[in-house]
Amino acid sequence: MRIDIISVLPELMESPFKTSILRRAMDKGLAEVHFHHLRDWAINKHRQIDDEPYGGGAGMVMMVEPLDQCISELKSQRDYDEVIYLTPDGVTLNQKIANTLSIRKNLMFLCGHYKGIDQRVRDLHITREISIGDYVLTGGELAACVLADSVIRLIPGVLNDEQSALTDSFQDNLLSPPIYTRPEVYKGLEVPKILLSGNFARIEEWRHDEAVRITREKRPDLLEE
Amino acid sequence: MRIDIISVLPELMESPFKTSILRRAMDKGLAEVHFHHLRDWAINKHRQIDDEPYGGGAGMVMMVEPLDQCISELKSQRDYDEVIYLTPDGVTLNQKIANTLSIRKNLMFLCGHYKGIDQRVRDLHITREISIGDYVLTGGELAACVLADSVIRLIPGVLNDEQSALTDSFQDNLLSPPIYTRPEVYKGLEVPKILLSGNFARIEEWRHDEAVRITREKRPDLLEE
Repeated sequence: MRIDIISVLPELMESPFKTSILRRAMDKGLAEVHFHHLRDWAINKHRQIDDEPYGGGAGMVMMVEPLDQCISELKSQRDYDEVIYLTPDGVTLNQKIANTLSIRKNLMFLCGHYKGIDQRVRDLHITREISIGDYVLTGGELAACVLADSVIRLIPGVLNDEQSALTDSFQDNLLSPPIYTRPEVYKGLEVPKILLSGNFARIEEWRHDEAVRITREKRPDLLEE
Repeated sequence: MRIDIISVLPELMESPFKTSILRRAMDKGLAEVHFHHLRDWAINKHRQIDDEPYGGGAGMVMMVEPLDQCISELKSQRDYDEVIYLTPDGVTLNQKIANTLSIRKNLMFLCGHYKGIDQRVRDLHITREISIGDYVLTGGELAACVLADSVIRLIPGVLNDEQSALTDSFQDNLLSPPIYTRPEVYKGLEVPKILLSGNFARIEEWRHDEAVRITREKRPDLLEE
């Protein structure tokens, strides 16, 4: 998978892509991520990429021209399965969307910043708008990192223990059951006896029951889907 | 505001906190963020902090002892308003939660990793469990960055233009209206005439109507709250 990320602050995304699973995926050649600094497509020598909104109001708007130029140039180099704009107005990211995107070949992410992008960029290029949640961030950069992480870890071979992704929360619309490791007793708190029983069929049953109980308690909406 | 972040991968969070608004908030003395490497509280010379789950199954579990030691040490140094565990099992972050946390003084974030933390850490210390959305990430580090960003930007004085945060998506349960900047016509696509009218009362009305229309179209659930 190749991901191209367009941003005015690519340096914000440096450490997440240099660390952990994302780094490993790139080292293994399973994913490549390319950053594109939007100012390289600025319209003038001041490297301008934003301007005041028509109609007045607070905040700056990312201009249509640099974005159109940058996206068009990338599109001329390869076919993109999706051109994704990270924005709080988008469809809320969930595990199903991450699963879907994880089998794509070329993705382009556009990080919004300031008040957002000129509507015409959306009209011209964007195939999918994704929000990582109902809250506002300084920019789309962290959202791009989150989306990339949620997608790249699902590519076969990225995680060491593939089983691990399959038993994650959400893959079966259930939250995870409680987990414990050594010691058996810590400050008077004991590991549930069933987990020490060695009866794996009963342990699986207990885990499923606990997952259902916890989901019902914390996130009944997941059970209704 | 002071935020203490406990993690096995603090280096993943370096660049987001060195850049942009988070950096500015720290430079202005409005926020301070301290990373704590969990391995500094490991139980043995192998710097062990995780172990296999009781009852079997894939993935490692973060042990109770190093986490309890680390959290207890921090708690002995100051009072924390909240000890927050970032986990997909938590309550889903939204703008209201971000607003609430933005007026707190001391917050502790615990980044889960691997399969998660021993349940007894939750029982002993965690006051709030937060998920940034219904998807699984490699670890809680990006979630901690997202939560910190969403909260810190709301601290008065952090954003240059305070008005800007008040007109963000979600602050009034509406998505943002379309925005435009120069030029008036780009590749045949025109800015809506109303925005060029100079009639600010009518522009505000149009923006509100568009925000309602877009919210009804994309996120009708927000209007029902």
